[in-house]
Amino acid sequence: MKAIHKNVVLIACSDQTGLIHKITGVLLHYSLNVTETEEFVDHTIQRFFMRIQFEGESGTEGVEQELRKILPASTHVHVGRLQPRKIVVLVSKELHCLGDLLLRYATGELQAEISAVVSQTEDGRELTKRFDIPFHYVPVRGLSREEHERELLKVLSPYQPEYLVLARYMRIFSESFIKCFPERIVNIHHSFLPAFIGKNPYDQAYERGVKIIGATAHFVTENLDEGPIITQAIIPINHADDPGEMARRGQDVEKIVLARATELVFEDRVLVDGRRTIVFE
Amino acid sequence: MKAIHKNVVLIACSDQTGLIHKITGVLLHYSLNVTETEEFVDHTIQRFFMRIQFEGESGTEGVEQELRKILPASTHVHVGRLQPRKIVVLVSKELHCLGDLLLRYATGELQAEISAVVSQTEDGRELTKRFDIPFHYVPVRGLSREEHERELLKVLSPYQPEYLVLARYMRIFSESFIKCFPERIVNIHHSFLPAFIGKNPYDQAYERGVKIIGATAHFVTENLDEGPIITQAIIPINHADDPGEMARRGQDVEKIVLARATELVFEDRVLVDGRRTIVFE
Amino acid sequence: MKAIHKNVVLIACSDQTGLIHKITGVLLHYSLNVTETEEFVDHTIQRFFMRIQFEGESGTEGVEQELRKILPASTHVHVGRLQPRKIVVLVSKELHCLGDLLLRYATGELQAEISAVVSQTEDGRELTKRFDIPFHYVPVRGLSREEHERELLKVLSPYQPEYLVLARYMRIFSESFIKCFPERIVNIHHSFLPAFIGKNPYDQAYERGVKIIGATAHFVTENLDEGPIITQAIIPINHADDPGEMARRGQDVEKIVLARATELVFEDRVLVDGRRTIVFE
Amino acid sequence: MKAIHKNVVLIACSDQTGLIHKITGVLLHYSLNVTETEEFVDHTIQRFFMRIQFEGESGTEGVEQELRKILPASTHVHVGRLQPRKIVVLVSKELHCLGDLLLRYATGELQAEISAVVSQTEDGRELTKRFDIPFHYVPVRGLSREEHERELLKVLSPYQPEYLVLARYMRIFSESFIKCFPERIVNIHHSFLPAFIGKNPYDQAYERGVKIIGATAHFVTENLDEGPIITQAIIPINHADDPGEMARRGQDVEKIVLARATELVFEDRVLVDGRRTIVFE
Repeated sequence: MKAIHKNVVLIACSDQTGLIHKITGVLLHYSLNVTETEEFVDHTIQRFFMRIQFEGESGTEGVEQELRKILPASTHVHVGRLQPRKIVVLVSKELHCLGDLLLRYATGELQAEISAVVSQTEDGRELTKRFDIPFHYVPVRGLSREEHERELLKVLSPYQPEYLVLARYMRIFSESFIKCFPERIVNIHHSFLPAFIGKNPYDQAYERGVKIIGATAHFVTENLDEGPIITQAIIPINHADDPGEMARRGQDVEKIVLARATELVFEDRVLVDGRRTIVFE
Repeated sequence: MKAIHKNVVLIACSDQTGLIHKITGVLLHYSLNVTETEEFVDHTIQRFFMRIQFEGESGTEGVEQELRKILPASTHVHVGRLQPRKIVVLVSKELHCLGDLLLRYATGELQAEISAVVSQTEDGRELTKRFDIPFHYVPVRGLSREEHERELLKVLSPYQPEYLVLARYMRIFSESFIKCFPERIVNIHHSFLPAFIGKNPYDQAYERGVKIIGATAHFVTENLDEGPIITQAIIPINHADDPGEMARRGQDVEKIVLARATELVFEDRVLVDGRRTIVFE
Repeated sequence: MKAIHKNVVLIACSDQTGLIHKITGVLLHYSLNVTETEEFVDHTIQRFFMRIQFEGESGTEGVEQELRKILPASTHVHVGRLQPRKIVVLVSKELHCLGDLLLRYATGELQAEISAVVSQTEDGRELTKRFDIPFHYVPVRGLSREEHERELLKVLSPYQPEYLVLARYMRIFSESFIKCFPERIVNIHHSFLPAFIGKNPYDQAYERGVKIIGATAHFVTENLDEGPIITQAIIPINHADDPGEMARRGQDVEKIVLARATELVFEDRVLVDGRRTIVFE
Repeated sequence: MKAIHKNVVLIACSDQTGLIHKITGVLLHYSLNVTETEEFVDHTIQRFFMRIQFEGESGTEGVEQELRKILPASTHVHVGRLQPRKIVVLVSKELHCLGDLLLRYATGELQAEISAVVSQTEDGRELTKRFDIPFHYVPVRGLSREEHERELLKVLSPYQPEYLVLARYMRIFSESFIKCFPERIVNIHHSFLPAFIGKNPYDQAYERGVKIIGATAHFVTENLDEGPIITQAIIPINHADDPGEMARRGQDVEKIVLARATELVFEDRVLVDGRRTIVFE
């Protein structure tokens, strides 16, 4: 007996008449059991985006080939099986996001397998060990950024991670490191970007006297805190919240936003288009 | 028979032991019927803030004098009657915030009397006239900023407004103009500041691909969009919202935020402390 | 030269394979300029729902006929032009929702033409008159419900309204009255239904000590406050908010929710399915 | 050297003139280092509520005695040290709330020491063990409610818990059991009460077609889901969310709401007044 798998088609191409008809024609031809379809045309830039989820027992190579035939030349098409992603989580001293991911993993809620946790400090070791997951301490001291990233890549290499999740990692990567994981590094920043880019956003928020704080999950690109935003959320604060209190209260919104982002990314619900994302929730 | 009035005491001073006891002692001495008290100590800067609301038939001069005697030298004390403020609303082409204020005024919900509406365009005239309020068109064309502001002040002068409310006014004031209304100009900016300062925040938001938009009400200072924030709110958006749709959907959050700010300011619930506000809601 | 119109197709039918392909085939055949499509399958009840928006100069009769041919027998299909709806607003003493609708109408934001305002009290007359709209006072006193509704229908009849909007109308209609406007009466209830059905929801909320209050826009059916919900929103409150304060603060959420509901309904974005709605936002 | 402790005074009494002055007089007399004060008068019922937080090295017996002397006869006064509460968490099959509490405990964020976890199923054992906390399985099968509760009390007895936290416990307690922990059992209910009382609130929410779901933390009283509400929150949903999806998405709001409630309760920020709570946030 063959197993039933969930599969996803992601399409991004220039818009033209009849695309949905053509695409659904291919799905019909293969008798796919389509369970979800969503499409979006960005009329500003005349781009067409579509996500199709279907169930099926067999391979999906034919579908992708057939779709390429009927779609415009420069189309981005991806057909893949929905299965738990292999990921590595990178952390630093703050452990609430890591803990939340470990918990979701332990209760089967995370659409990923956490292969390992990597950190530049020892803080996360005990928590990670509680969940029987390998923890790697990759110290920074005395190393240049290149040397440190080389060490990192050495540690990551055996795990072959599909995605890196930066759960409050707090270090900037070089362009060459990021190129190893294009659109596959998800970061949580503890502000509603583009407000309070960079270090100590809660101190910045206190200084400015804002009445809301927030968190932003985004893909990492070479420009710090400038990558395409996946999802954001906020909480109200008031004059009585100093930076420490903001940090404490912000933890909950950070962990919810990061978890939501991983869910969206790992279920192939996010398409990147320049600096923007199309998110089929 | 004397009328019963609502009065407010606002206090801001350096913190020291026993302040609340001393202050409430004065209130007791005058047999004031206190209905609300709120206090806050900012331990970072050792500042004490308090708001007291009381009902009483007579004058309040004695209270203020007595409070000054017992409080530290550089204390800011203000005792005043809560009564509808005399305001002038300044607008431009976008009329939703103006309309909302007019409506609240008409239904008795606004804690203010709108003496007049002033604009650099004619767009708001018809709407203002529906509510039997004077409308002044003060054109910009051909005038330097100083000349235009001189014209504005000439128009404002007979109304002696306590507050100016910028309901999407879209022009920057000179420092000298602002000095005529210190902490008495309230502006609505259509972004969650400090994100998207300046012109066309919705275009900026689209460019950056954010997943939330918002509005910020703040006091106007010489630095554009940098004044102390009174209140902020946001709404979620997604990839399908282009700048036009954001502008349309943003209108509701703008008008709610501006109305809320006027309510807080006109009820003496806002204390300014540097770039921050203490808001006793 | 023929005018370009916006049109909407709404489809609800039992789910089967290939529906989207068939439907988009018809659209292609007619060379329609489709600008938005959204579809949803409720797998629990195997129902398919779709909304298509297209621009076109000519009539739409052919499209509807053609769609009927290819779709299952009991399909609900509706093809119509998107144009301002003719509505009548019914109010009572509370005027904030009426005011908000009038304002949106005046600034061209409402997808409707307010033909008239009808009330059982005189309170709304002055406000309505400011916007040059007919106001009808239909008193209740001394009349049975049937008699009052007969009077109402007499007043409504010349306007031939497509929709009735109950902007805090506060009276219950008989089944026979509702049958005159099936799925065409939109009500705002000042609670997050199903909490606090019936009279004085803010008093009920105070009694129960809830920490949030809200508003619900729904279609009116014969069961009080039980009709299909179109949209809802909430605001946080605390122990200091008594019923009067809740009523005051609730006004803003009520008017936003009602306005949003009219927008969704008048743009044909809402499909009713039993007690539930499918809302293509 | 004596240690510096945080202490809290909670006062609830009938309102009268000069209370704050009298109370702060006592604090002054004892030279207490007051860091937070909040007070509230419910004018509807003429009740006065106050919370004072102060730092001090010595005992607090004198303060409580002195306050009793100057306050009305039936005053509720409580002076106590702020220290981690000893709690027992009760769970059932759903583990997300338990996991979140364990995580906060492990990272030092929870103002409590989790002495043990108790369940009527074995599901939570593995997760609890990861955090080196005793887990007790107290089966229900074959036992009457009284017998089961007797077993429970036997298991709880050696821990002498100050509070019981029901982290999705899903069973109703008898009045006599609840009397053993008056205002000391905190429950999380997975709806925005009073909507959807009782079993399967997400199924009820689906049936009713609501557009928001939520969670409510409340003290447990003899009336199911009727106890005083501590805090509530909601998330928006749409037609595409079936009960399973609601349950999945609801988990995050449930765990945030329960964690927030424990924080408020364990920091002595919640006063119960009949069916309502005063929450000094």
